[in-house]
Amino acid sequence: MKKEVLKVIKIGGKLIENESKFAEFLNDFVDLEGPKILVHGGGNLATEIAGKLGYKTQMFEGRRITDVDSIKVITMVYGGFINKNIVAKLQGLQTNAIGLSGADGMSIISKKRPVKEVDFGFVGDVQKVNSKFIDSLLKQNITPVFSAISCTEEGLLLNTNGDSVAAEIAKAMSSIYETELYFCFEKKGVLANAEDNDSVIENITRKKYQELLKEKVISDGMLPKLHNCFEALESGVKNICLGDFRLLKKESVYTKISNE
Amino acid sequence: MKKEVLKVIKIGGKLIENESKFAEFLNDFVDLEGPKILVHGGGNLATEIAGKLGYKTQMFEGRRITDVDSIKVITMVYGGFINKNIVAKLQGLQTNAIGLSGADGMSIISKKRPVKEVDFGFVGDVQKVNSKFIDSLLKQNITPVFSAISCTEEGLLLNTNGDSVAAEIAKAMSSIYETELYFCFEKKGVLANAEDNDSVIENITRKKYQELLKEKVISDGMLPKLHNCFEALESGVKNICLGDFRLLKKESVYTKISNE
Repeated sequence: MKKEVLKVIKIGGKLIENESKFAEFLNDFVDLEGPKILVHGGGNLATEIAGKLGYKTQMFEGRRITDVDSIKVITMVYGGFINKNIVAKLQGLQTNAIGLSGADGMSIISKKRPVKEVDFGFVGDVQKVNSKFIDSLLKQNITPVFSAISCTEEGLLLNTNGDSVAAEIAKAMSSIYETELYFCFEKKGVLANAEDNDSVIENITRKKYQELLKEKVISDGMLPKLHNCFEALESGVKNICLGDFRLLKKESVYTKISNE
Repeated sequence: MKKEVLKVIKIGGKLIENESKFAEFLNDFVDLEGPKILVHGGGNLATEIAGKLGYKTQMFEGRRITDVDSIKVITMVYGGFINKNIVAKLQGLQTNAIGLSGADGMSIISKKRPVKEVDFGFVGDVQKVNSKFIDSLLKQNITPVFSAISCTEEGLLLNTNGDSVAAEIAKAMSSIYETELYFCFEKKGVLANAEDNDSVIENITRKKYQELLKEKVISDGMLPKLHNCFEALESGVKNICLGDFRLLKKESVYTKISNE
């Protein structure tokens, strides 16, 4: 029997902060037919709130360290304010949604990242996605909306990379659904020239990916994203698309990633 | 067929803020057998965060006005920080829980309080509890943990009285379960003398309640709580108990409210 299609959509924090673009995105999102899951990042609001509260952001080589104050703000802003507001907006658009962190229903279980040269603090790497629980929501026509917060078996909340959360959910749900993964971010797709937003590479196969890597076409920020994508394809995810806030319309240009 | 017993437990913000008492409460909570629901208030953390963010708390005759900044902070602090931390703690105690606002699964639908002499802002009165959705969680052995935030049909998040949320949930679930309602707060129960924490009135029937009202024994803050209690009993709730953080042990003194 052919599996039903499930769409897992990750949206970046910058999109959420742009009111008109985000409203357009949400309208496209509610128009999508069939089961779907939304995963959201946080954007600059957490940094802004942390600053106002007098918390200092610690960085190491450009990467944020999630100390005890940071995880507090992340839980407030991503897990609370942004998550509940997206759910409320979806309810207003007649889409029954539920806001979740990884702690809720133990939906995303992680391990705290081991301390090596640097202690990145309350940061987790996903170990297990509770696909059965998530599916119980989908079967009730409820759309899960995930903030990128996971939880250890011991009950510790951890900041987690939003792209990884989306990819891990898509991978886990592949046992039940034919899963499609969408990344909506500020670019129109993977760019051949990082300076030119119109230089979208429309199709990236595994072979093409190897070529792009060799030619050093892909910019630094894009590398982990693409690495995640091919790993997800290997773990059963069917299709991956990257593009801007118009991605769900599939009218504009975007990047499609596939094994062949 | 006899209905299964469901316990709905409301805890006040002051209890959450007391680390050792709250830990003791949570241990008793996870030891409770059978299906259960937790409803939590927020305490002073929201006021503290609002102050640090430079938001001014507007009051009218001792009652807080929930303006646009207040509902933002309430959603962050109650709906995010406190809610997710309780859920994570319960997971660490091997109790599978899920944190919810009224927007999630449209579990608590409310109407914005109409503006009369004063506009109390983003404040809602509960209209409908989605008992079917809540029961679908209980049937999966998941314990719902509610922050006192409700949502209108139009997708507006509203600050809502925590006692009312607990009572409305208990009332709605009475169609499926034999429902018991517990209020854990800073007093040992309803007091005959507001100054003396040992003057607990152990049993309050409807007749006794009328007497206490006549004799003006019950202090101002207790009046709406007791009014809610008898309304809940009328709507099918079986038992109501009021006491401090040890209430769930049922060893210490507490107040039991019943029709007769």
